[in-house]
Order: sequence, then structure tokens, then C-alpha cells
Amino acid sequence: MTAYLGDWRGRYRGAALCVVRPATTAAVAAVVRVCAEAGVAMVPQGGNTSLCGAATPGSDGRSVLISLSRMRRVRAIDTLNNTITVEAGCVLQTVQEAAAEAGRLFPLSLAAEGSCQLGGNLSTNAGGVQVLRYGNTRELTLGLEVVLPSGEVWDGLRALRKDNTGYDLKHLFIGAEGTLGIITAAVLKLFPKPRSTATAWLAIASPALAVRLLAELQAQFGASLTACELVSEQALDLVRKHLPGAHPSVSASPWHLLIELSGSSDEAALREALTSFLAAALDQRMLGDALLAQSIEQARCLWALRENIGEAQKIEGQSIKHDVSLPISRLPEFVERADRALLLAYPEIRIVTFGHIGDGNLHYNQSTSAAGENAAFLAAQPEVNRIVHDLVHELGGSISAEHGIGQLKRVELLRYKSPVEIEMMRAIKRTLDPQGLMNPGKVL
Amino acid sequence: MTAYLGDWRGRYRGAALCVVRPATTAAVAAVVRVCAEAGVAMVPQGGNTSLCGAATPGSDGRSVLISLSRMRRVRAIDTLNNTITVEAGCVLQTVQEAAAEAGRLFPLSLAAEGSCQLGGNLSTNAGGVQVLRYGNTRELTLGLEVVLPSGEVWDGLRALRKDNTGYDLKHLFIGAEGTLGIITAAVLKLFPKPRSTATAWLAIASPALAVRLLAELQAQFGASLTACELVSEQALDLVRKHLPGAHPSVSASPWHLLIELSGSSDEAALREALTSFLAAALDQRMLGDALLAQSIEQARCLWALRENIGEAQKIEGQSIKHDVSLPISRLPEFVERADRALLLAYPEIRIVTFGHIGDGNLHYNQSTSAAGENAAFLAAQPEVNRIVHDLVHELGGSISAEHGIGQLKRVELLRYKSPVEIEMMRAIKRTLDPQGLMNPGKVL
Repeated sequence: MTAYLGDWRGRYRGAALCVVRPATTAAVAAVVRVCAEAGVAMVPQGGNTSLCGAATPGSDGRSVLISLSRMRRVRAIDTLNNTITVEAGCVLQTVQEAAAEAGRLFPLSLAAEGSCQLGGNLSTNAGGVQVLRYGNTRELTLGLEVVLPSGEVWDGLRALRKDNTGYDLKHLFIGAEGTLGIITAAVLKLFPKPRSTATAWLAIASPALAVRLLAELQAQFGASLTACELVSEQALDLVRKHLPGAHPSVSASPWHLLIELSGSSDEAALREALTSFLAAALDQRMLGDALLAQSIEQARCLWALRENIGEAQKIEGQSIKHDVSLPISRLPEFVERADRALLLAYPEIRIVTFGHIGDGNLHYNQSTSAAGENAAFLAAQPEVNRIVHDLVHELGGSISAEHGIGQLKRVELLRYKSPVEIEMMRAIKRTLDPQGLMNPGKVL
Repeated sequence: MTAYLGDWRGRYRGAALCVVRPATTAAVAAVVRVCAEAGVAMVPQGGNTSLCGAATPGSDGRSVLISLSRMRRVRAIDTLNNTITVEAGCVLQTVQEAAAEAGRLFPLSLAAEGSCQLGGNLSTNAGGVQVLRYGNTRELTLGLEVVLPSGEVWDGLRALRKDNTGYDLKHLFIGAEGTLGIITAAVLKLFPKPRSTATAWLAIASPALAVRLLAELQAQFGASLTACELVSEQALDLVRKHLPGAHPSVSASPWHLLIELSGSSDEAALREALTSFLAAALDQRMLGDALLAQSIEQARCLWALRENIGEAQKIEGQSIKHDVSLPISRLPEFVERADRALLLAYPEIRIVTFGHIGDGNLHYNQSTSAAGENAAFLAAQPEVNRIVHDLVHELGGSISAEHGIGQLKRVELLRYKSPVEIEMMRAIKRTLDPQGLMNPGKVL
């Protein structure tokens, strides 16, 4: 059972009575019914790529781990309705490929897409690199099928863009990290395939300029701006060091911005529009330099610089990770004040900052460069969290933008949510899972 | 109190102990607290434009009507974050105008926009004519402030595009029609103003061709296709007859499609692209005729043809209204089968069909042309509903796409929702409103 009992980051290791791998909704329901009758806790698990330990069981060994990985059928594609119906165990990349084969785009895209599963994406309301244009997993979901904690099946697999018939229950299960039931299938939105793409890597001086540039890009390109990713020089350095392959040579700069336009105009027109925009921005000194990808392959290499930051950081050693979001207007102030406070408290630390600034979402991670000292620094996580999360809270932000709460941020959640909100969440948990058997020790 | 006790369509008239008009969140909370302590029911009301009687109190005269219309402040606009924070009593058009003044677009747009209020739009998850591109009110909402049935205030006014910190409670209140609490303010998304618009009126032979054309428009124009509205010749006739002003002369045709493109390209390019698309569609006989608006004024007149259908129908007399949605691929089959079944059962009826086919949403209304017979026909509403709604249900559709449930469709809801889903909804209602005081007799 080893592979199921630890998390991807290597922070958590739990124990379980057994691992069950049902292949159908009826089989999931049967397992849940038996567990509910016996009063045994259940931990649902997809691709096991959670960054917060949401899919790892506790250490008491008294729960049943339910892996959804055998529920991997694409049940239906409707190209006129632009929907795809998939089971929870489908790997994200499989869904992307099924959509592409049908001449459509499924836009959810993130670093773990080759192994994460849709059930996990739904349960954590995964974000990724195209949220700016297409929304989070929540916004991509039209319907759900859920096995409730009683073992009953809720068939909410509607494929409708408008449906106002009472409370919208699917939104309770999306992002609930398996604490209210087990998602077994979903109806997801598809989109027309973009007819053209333009990708560029920009050298910029500061987060404040990045936010200004974002506003100008949106004014100019509207919905065609499909990605806008911030990368600090330190983050880029880790990729250069640990994943040396053939990197496109991008200028040294304190900050970088990876942008992608895609849309319905033809590619030459799109590239031309972007080229004149970038020339004007260079003239106005909003950029230091700009590299416009000349081929799909070069665009892929630019994306690899961004997507491999997490992997490179893992090779370097553990770090204290923050996955925060802020009103976009407050991002520059956050970076400036958080950097200053952290460097004052821990002069030896390295801060790795990157993320989806088009969504106000930063990954903001700290470690020390010297491996020997890192263990001691990691022990300071509560104090580091306090500095970062208190500031996030002060600026109206969120302590978990796209990774969820899991085991990692349960105590933090209690600190920052109002008692009114925590009590509403608890009341809903008690109502839907009165025995408290679904993924105990996570979120609440 | 008369104005508050009847609905816009003139179907419902209720009674109330009193009407209160609090001007602040604290005042709403104080009113709710007093009612909760006294065990008195509350009916929240915005612009009172519900089509389902959701804002009209029952006839027992034992509830307090809470009008939010004095809570009409725009609290904040953040152009870098693209958000606007408004109070529940803001008229929709006021919000659109505030956004426009700040150089942004608030895209929610519907016939009642001059009098409906945001609190009502949120409570019914209003749709309208730009859902295809921008989503329903739900998708436009980032945060809420809600006075709970206890009188406590939940401050969920977050202005974040990514926030995964536990259950997403705002989605419970959006679309709940005031049965779980009173929404007092919201943070809404703004968008870049489109730089160009092109509007066209198309004569088409059938709903099947409309759906095919929609798919081709989406493939060609992607996110630039911001509206796609179907209008039957009968619906258009009512506007010509009752609102005779200066209508653009559009060709007679069994069906019409009003489409709008808007986006970031320049207007000449957009119009040219649409012109060549329409020329090709004419060549392929997908269209009978096409009228491309030559000015903003002409575009406004084309939209008036569409927007005034409801008003014209009201002048003609009452009708049995259906607000249904279907998977877009099933729309043609629905129209064909529903028309056939209704005309067989009621040979004398007139069917008025129009709606947002880009969202799979049809307004499908029936009356008789002879006023004398109409009263008798209206009495047949249960049988007419049965024919229409049974077919909607069979085809995987919804009996309320954008108008909600209110009093009108409460019994229908029980017929079509699964017992599992109804019981979950009731459990949530009992949990958040244990005394059952919030807008009783609506939805559940």
C-alpha cells in the first residue's frame, strides 16, 4: 500500500486499513455504504499530487483509502453542447487529449497534468495557468455525480449552462477536498480550439510594472490574453541549475513575465499585434527586453522554464511553501513588504516567487541555500507562516489560492476565517456527513 | 404598501405586517435579529421584477417585507483588480454605468436592467444576453456580504479570483432566492471594455440551422461571440404589433438569430470578418438573409426587437411562460417535439419562442390569440407544464434556466428533482435557517 500512504512532497505518511480500487460508481457507493454502516473513516485519493496532504490518510491506520484511479472512462463528448463527461479517475492530460481529438479545448492546465486526476482537480478546485481566461476548475464544471457519505448517489450530471432550480449543490463538493462526499464523475465545459497562439518572455523591473503591464495587455487584448505568469530571477535560477537541458536564453532581470495570447484571429495578425504592443512598451521603458517565441517548440521551452520551477525546487530540497492570492492591485505591496519582513527575520533565506499574477495568485516559497541549515529553517514554518499569512490577511488575500487546505493549513484556516464562516462550514459538514467519516482531519 | 405586495406579472398579491427599508447592513441585521427573536418570517425584496413571485409575500400577512432599495451605494471600484463592490439595492443599470465611467464593462444585461437590483440578480442568479461570453451572475461574483437568518453578518466580501479555503459558501446564497439569508453587498468582476462591436440580424429556416450556425460562429470567433439570440417569427410579430415605433425592416422568416461580436480587434476588421463569414453562410444556404447593423443606433434597434418581446407579450395578455434550458445539441428536437405535442392538445394556441440559444436557454410561452379564450387556456397551465416540462426533463434539461423557482415552480421542482437532491436542499435549509423564517413558501 506504500504508494498510497505518502504524499508527493514527502511531508506526510499515514496508514490505512486497506486500499480499495472500485471501478464504477456503484462499487464506490457499495464501499461507502459498508464503511458508513461500520463507522469506518474513508480517505478518497486521485493522482495523489496534493501539495497539502489532502489525500494522505492519518497515522492511526483506522481508515479505508479509496482510490478512484480505476474510474477512468470518458463517458461522453457532445461537440454541439461543448461538454465532456468524465469519471473522477481520468488523468487531466487524458481529458485534454480527448477534447483535442474532438476538435475542442479543455483548458485546465497545470504542472501535474500528466498524473493528477480530475476527481482531485475538482476536490481542490484546481487553478493552473489559464484561469485568467477560462476560470478555475469550479468555473469549468457544469455537473457532478457524487457518492454521499451515506452511500447514496447524487446524480447531478447536468450538461446545462443555465440551471436555476434551487441551491447549487455542486459548488459545495467542488473544493471540499473529499470531506463531504466522493466525486465520481463530472460534466466539464469545452471551448473552441484557439486558432492562433503567441508566446513571449518579458524582462521587467518589478511586480508593480508587471501589474501595470497586465492592465495594458487586458485593455489591448481582452479575452485573447490567456496566461500571464510572473517569475522571479531566483526561481528561474533554480531551473537553470537543476534542469539544465536546452533553455531558451532569456535576459537576466530581477523579474520575468511569461505571457500567452490565443484566440480566433490568424496567427500572423496576432503576432503582429503583440509585436507592436511590446515595441511600444519597450519605448515606454515598461520592459527591459522581450523574446517572442518563433515556433511552437520555442514556446514550449519558455513554458518549461515556468512549469519546472516546482520540480527544480524539490531537487534543491524542501521549502516552506505559500500559495497565496491577493487583489491584483495589492500584489506589489505584498511582495515588497513580505520580502522585507522575511529578510529581516531570516537574513540567510532564499525567496522563490512565481505565479499566476493575472489571477492575483503567487507561489511564495522560502528555504536556505545551505542544505545543512535548511532543516532548522523548516522548523520555523509557524513563524514564517505568521509573517506571510498575517500580511496576506491584512491586504484582503487568501492563504490558499489553488492548493487547498488539506492537513497543512487546517490550523491557519482557523486563525484567519471569521467564527461566523467557520461555524457555517462546520454546520454544513455535520449536516452532510453526520458521522464525520469523510476524509477526517482535512480542511476542518 | 401596495407596490411591494404584488409582482410585476400581476400573478401574485400578498400581505405583510409592514415594509421596512433599512439603509445599511447593520440596519438589515438589526431587523433580522428582531424578527428572528420574535419568530416572524421575512421576505427580502429588490426591484420586484421576479417572474416567479419570489419577492412577493404570502397571503397570510404574517411576514415582514424587507426592501433593500435604500442600500444603493457603490462601495468601491478597483480598476487594477477589475472589481466593483456594490450594495444589494443598486439598480443593475447603475452598476453598468459606474463600471463604464471607470473604463470597464460590467456585462450582466437583461430586459429589466433599468429597475432590477443586484440583490435580486444575485438571489436568482440572473442570466441575460451575454452569458455566452461572461457567464451568469454567479460567475460574475467574487464575494458576498450576507445577513444570516440569525441576524449575524457573514463578511465574505473577498475580491479574489482564486480562493480555496474551505467550502465556497457564496454559491449557496447565490440563486437561493432569499431563503437562506439576505445578501446585502457583493464584489463583482469587471472586464475590459470591448474596443469594437458588430451586430447582425439573420433570417434562418430552423432551430437546427441556428445550432449549426452557432457552432460555426464559435469555431470562427471564439470569445468574440458575445450574444446569440433566437427569435421566432411569432415573437417578432408581437413586437411589431404592440410596440410599433421605428423597427428596422428585417426579412420575414420562420426564425431569426440576433448575434453580436465584440472584442479587442478594431471595428473595421471585426465587421469585415463577420461580413465574410455571413457571405459564406449565405452561399451554403445556412441563412436566408443577413442585416449587419451600420451604426450603434441601428444595433440598438435590432436589440430592441429582441428585448421588447416580453413587454409586447404582456400587452397582449397573460401567457403560460416556460424558462427552460437544454443541452444545446437537444434544442432542435425539443422545439419540434414540444410544438407538435402542444398544437395537438391545444390547436388554437400561439407559441412564442425566443431565448439565449448560446446558453441552451429558451423562453417558451403559450397563450391564445383570442382574449376571451385565454382565461380558459391559462387554467390549463398544469397540463401545459406537464407536456413541456416532462419533455425538458426527458432531454436532460432544466425547468428554470434563469428565472428561478419562486412560488411559481415549487411543485414542479418536487416533481423533477431526485429525492436525494431535494433532501440535501432541505437539510441545508434546516441547517442555515432552522426556524424557517427566510422567504417562506419559496423554492422549497
